Amino acid sequence: MKPVRYLTGITTTGTPHLGNYVGALRPAVEASRRAGTENFYFLADYHALIKCDDPARMQRSTLEIAACWLAIGLDPEHVFFYRQSDIPEIPELTWLLTCVTGKGLLNRAHAYKASVDKNAAAGIDADDGVTAGLFMYPVLMAADILMFKAHKIPVGRDQAQHIEMARDIASSFNHLYGELLVLPEAAIDDNVALLPGTDGRKMSKSYDNAIPLFQPREQLRKQIAGIVTDSRAPGEPKQAEGSALFQIYEAFASPAETQQLLQAYADGISWADAKQMLFERIEREVAPMRERYDALMTNPAEIEKTLQRGAEKARALATPYIGELRHAVGLRNLAAQAAPVKKDKAAKAALPSFKQYREADGLHYFKLVDAQGRLLAQSSGFASPQDAGRTIAQLKRNELTGVSLQLADGITDADVANALSALDAAA
Amino acid sequence: MKPVRYLTGITTTGTPHLGNYVGALRPAVEASRRAGTENFYFLADYHALIKCDDPARMQRSTLEIAACWLAIGLDPEHVFFYRQSDIPEIPELTWLLTCVTGKGLLNRAHAYKASVDKNAAAGIDADDGVTAGLFMYPVLMAADILMFKAHKIPVGRDQAQHIEMARDIASSFNHLYGELLVLPEAAIDDNVALLPGTDGRKMSKSYDNAIPLFQPREQLRKQIAGIVTDSRAPGEPKQAEGSALFQIYEAFASPAETQQLLQAYADGISWADAKQMLFERIEREVAPMRERYDALMTNPAEIEKTLQRGAEKARALATPYIGELRHAVGLRNLAAQAAPVKKDKAAKAALPSFKQYREADGLHYFKLVDAQGRLLAQSSGFASPQDAGRTIAQLKRNELTGVSLQLADGITDADVANALSALDAAA
Repeated sequence: MKPVRYLTGITTTGTPHLGNYVGALRPAVEASRRAGTENFYFLADYHALIKCDDPARMQRSTLEIAACWLAIGLDPEHVFFYRQSDIPEIPELTWLLTCVTGKGLLNRAHAYKASVDKNAAAGIDADDGVTAGLFMYPVLMAADILMFKAHKIPVGRDQAQHIEMARDIASSFNHLYGELLVLPEAAIDDNVALLPGTDGRKMSKSYDNAIPLFQPREQLRKQIAGIVTDSRAPGEPKQAEGSALFQIYEAFASPAETQQLLQAYADGISWADAKQMLFERIEREVAPMRERYDALMTNPAEIEKTLQRGAEKARALATPYIGELRHAVGLRNLAAQAAPVKKDKAAKAALPSFKQYREADGLHYFKLVDAQGRLLAQSSGFASPQDAGRTIAQLKRNELTGVSLQLADGITDADVANALSALDAAA
Repeated sequence: MKPVRYLTGITTTGTPHLGNYVGALRPAVEASRRAGTENFYFLADYHALIKCDDPARMQRSTLEIAACWLAIGLDPEHVFFYRQSDIPEIPELTWLLTCVTGKGLLNRAHAYKASVDKNAAAGIDADDGVTAGLFMYPVLMAADILMFKAHKIPVGRDQAQHIEMARDIASSFNHLYGELLVLPEAAIDDNVALLPGTDGRKMSKSYDNAIPLFQPREQLRKQIAGIVTDSRAPGEPKQAEGSALFQIYEAFASPAETQQLLQAYADGISWADAKQMLFERIEREVAPMRERYDALMTNPAEIEKTLQRGAEKARALATPYIGELRHAVGLRNLAAQAAPVKKDKAAKAALPSFKQYREADGLHYFKLVDAQGRLLAQSSGFASPQDAGRTIAQLKRNELTGVSLQLADGITDADVANALSALDAAA
């Protein structure tokens, strides 16, 4: 059986903290060792350019983030670990995809719409301060994913739309040029471990309560000493429930160790001692990684070499594949055997289409989109893809009896009827 | 003195006719031989993808157009002659430029606005049928131009906006990252020779009155025989004024030859004989080119080789240059000596700026644009760039006395005053 391909983009900005480590980095590295999978991790520096126009910071962040992932145990020999900007096939594919992407699809991207809404609230021009980079970001992201035929993209729920857009863009391409792109699926994990910060709220840079993953040992100790606790005195039993300290400990400890702290809480351990226990437990896990991190940071050339090797591995897949895609769209060696010119492309391009997908509720759905990828209507849930497929087949024959469709905003029954007639006529 | 660089994009769709030859192809090939110039001609196949989703036609058209330019005498050893899609640095630069381009700038592109207006008139969604390719086309075009530090872009007046946009995009980049991109200028020739077609109107594919440049000799003769004339009989003197036949002849003939036809008109030459003269004159110029064209078309591998050599020549410039640009934005070898992280980038990025330019009236102008590239105000004309520069300097000190500015649509005096204050404060 062919391995399932997972692809993860790594933001090359910011400094990872313990919350990132527990919630994202550690599980990603663990996931990279699963049998039956192939794993792609890339430093998304082309994306970073959208927000960061400071070249020195760009370079520094990329170095730090690369060092971090290697230090926590990502094995570049075992996975594909590369820097996006080392793969010239990605911007190339971005352009090919740009030409098949409806602008309307991009108008509806959450990140872009958020900027527009913010401007509207401030009473200024909708696109004020919006760069083409922010607007085109979903197409670049689609290229990242489609370039490597990734099946599964681990993302948070807020990122699911990007994967849906990559699917839409891939469908448009396949519709015009044949089934060459693999439609990716979002792998949404709703059980992401959330770590509290030093003030008890979710650990986050924006709350200023984050404990950096890599910092000198004594600084780590000091930050852990600063975690808020209640005012129970030494000797008084402590509550594990609602204790940030306890939750952080649990994220690092084995069940047996957690049990020990629970007992210590009941026995009235002092907060100072509990903090020392937490510090020692974290330090046990972090110290060897910190040592590797510090060593890597003094040797940027070594990291550069690792990334170059990663790029070579990735391009061994990307280069022949972009060749296929270029051929498909007609960017060809002029001496290649030319196929006869087709006459019916425009008609084919102008057809609406159905897209099937599966939701987190386990049910199978489909939607009807017009030739520009605009959503017309969505189905209710089906128990199996076959059930959904049968209903699509029925609709393609322009038979609507017994089918319930939810119309998209601003879409009328007539729009859907027209789309179905067009499909029926073309069949 | 460094040679002036001219860059011309060649559309890879359609079949060139005599009008294209006389008005664009022949002058372009002649221009390529001017002393003191370096000339770049590229087959714009990435652009063609925006409109053409038929791969076989893409390939066929590229072949025909390449053969055509070589047949009419473009010397690939003397000029840079390459296919856009052979230069991976171009889509790469496109992404770098995308990140510094305000979306508002693209909203105002004529081609995009024309689509929006058409949709509005039809009462449908503004972006209906609009691809991201159409929307992003000005950024790709900027990359085409800026990649080769071209100074002059020969374009029709309707294309001048694209060059202005390339300048704006380059200015934004230079503003953030230093003066690395060369600001191009439109070279607008208002004296383009317009050839009438067989029906006397301007020769154009859309009027169905065009005579293809390359077609079998007898077909050319037949098409010339079909040119409309008046009903004057043999022996009656003919009018040169308003005679399509005469105008076409003039476009191919020497002054002495033109004089001969004029005499023949006065002497009452029959239309049949006049058409035979025209056919022979055109055939004399076209026959050797047609022979080369036919030979080239039977040898696509040879054309492919020529284009590959052209790409090599072009990439010898593009590869090191994109390296500089990548370094400038922070896409760097991690082992490269890192400069200290600057703190004031965001502030710098948010500043309005002045842009100087020269209009066809020979006068020097400037405009004030905000940080997103939105036009705030335009100056009146100055006799010299120094005069314009002095006024800019005065405005930068926030002194408006005696300066007349024309505000852009929707811009108030307060907007301009705010922009000038921001500039003054940052100085």
